[in-house]
Amino acid sequence: MLNISDTLETLVTELSRLPGIGRKTAQRLSMFIIKQPREDVEKLTLALMDIKDRIKFCRVCCNITEDEVCRICCSEKRSRSIICVVEEPQDVYAIEKTNEFRGLYHVLHGRISPLEGIGPDDIRVRELIYRLEDDPESKIEELILALNPTVEGETTILYLSRIIRPLGIRISRIARGLPIGSDIELADEITLAKAIEGRITI
Amino acid sequence: MLNISDTLETLVTELSRLPGIGRKTAQRLSMFIIKQPREDVEKLTLALMDIKDRIKFCRVCCNITEDEVCRICCSEKRSRSIICVVEEPQDVYAIEKTNEFRGLYHVLHGRISPLEGIGPDDIRVRELIYRLEDDPESKIEELILALNPTVEGETTILYLSRIIRPLGIRISRIARGLPIGSDIELADEITLAKAIEGRITI
Repeated sequence: MLNISDTLETLVTELSRLPGIGRKTAQRLSMFIIKQPREDVEKLTLALMDIKDRIKFCRVCCNITEDEVCRICCSEKRSRSIICVVEEPQDVYAIEKTNEFRGLYHVLHGRISPLEGIGPDDIRVRELIYRLEDDPESKIEELILALNPTVEGETTILYLSRIIRPLGIRISRIARGLPIGSDIELADEITLAKAIEGRITI
Repeated sequence: MLNISDTLETLVTELSRLPGIGRKTAQRLSMFIIKQPREDVEKLTLALMDIKDRIKFCRVCCNITEDEVCRICCSEKRSRSIICVVEEPQDVYAIEKTNEFRGLYHVLHGRISPLEGIGPDDIRVRELIYRLEDDPESKIEELILALNPTVEGETTILYLSRIIRPLGIRISRIARGLPIGSDIELADEITLAKAIEGRITI
């Protein structure tokens, strides 16, 4: 392909590194940026560097935060007896939006995946065990495992439930079943099987 | 929604301004950036500012370039008798990839759209007329209008052909018809009508 400008090439390459952004999208974004006023591009670059400079991981739950301990872990309004374990910070966002959960979180920053060579030591399992076992202030009674319903999520659930069961803490997992508004006819067999298995008496 | 961090909020807002990037994608990109090494983010921000500092518009064809006159306009290998008029710099990329065109380009940076209040003076029409009419070195014999097959593209073609016809330059437009690998049965009526209208004797 024609190389119009090396500067443009560099930006397209850098943007293509972002997840879900291919060369075509990177080109479209570059063209947009070329036409933007300089101060808008400056604002974006400032926000990018700020995030690297200011964001840390909460000392307690490993969620992202600007402080030593995050806003949820600090909040007086949250129940300290229940922890919801999730894979990524985005999952905290998603669960908070439901307004269904008022406990604390623990962010693993990944899931166990033997195929990708990710073991328990590569994610924040040690920090979770500390909260359950060694932290003198801990009052944890229940652990909700809100991991993705994938092979890796299942592997992680299996591993966590095995090492946590001896601690005498109640462990639950979020339900698998038909999403609201979907159709039984169109559901895949595994989802339908899990929905029947997890049926609730009414 | 829960505000985890103002720094994160700012980045999500800035990224959401980019075309085709909604809040969800902006959040995903932000999370990715948080996990990237600092030097990678620095490379990206440098590329972003570089593009604002170095990219100019070619004095002749208005395409983006780092020089006064772009590489295509400078090239000895290109025919100087034919200009392909396109809406955006991306279109030059797309046409160059076909290896079908060896002439020069003219980038309008938009199209006439009365609904959006974009008239001929808002796009690079004046620069095109100068190349055809006033430039003493000009040897243009044909103009290919490679504008998008949309209402705005058609309006622009109509306008350009009206003001250029008196100059005695041959004007053509790229063919509208069925894309390769498509299906007559599934084609929309307008495309099919244009394909029949533009039939070629074999």
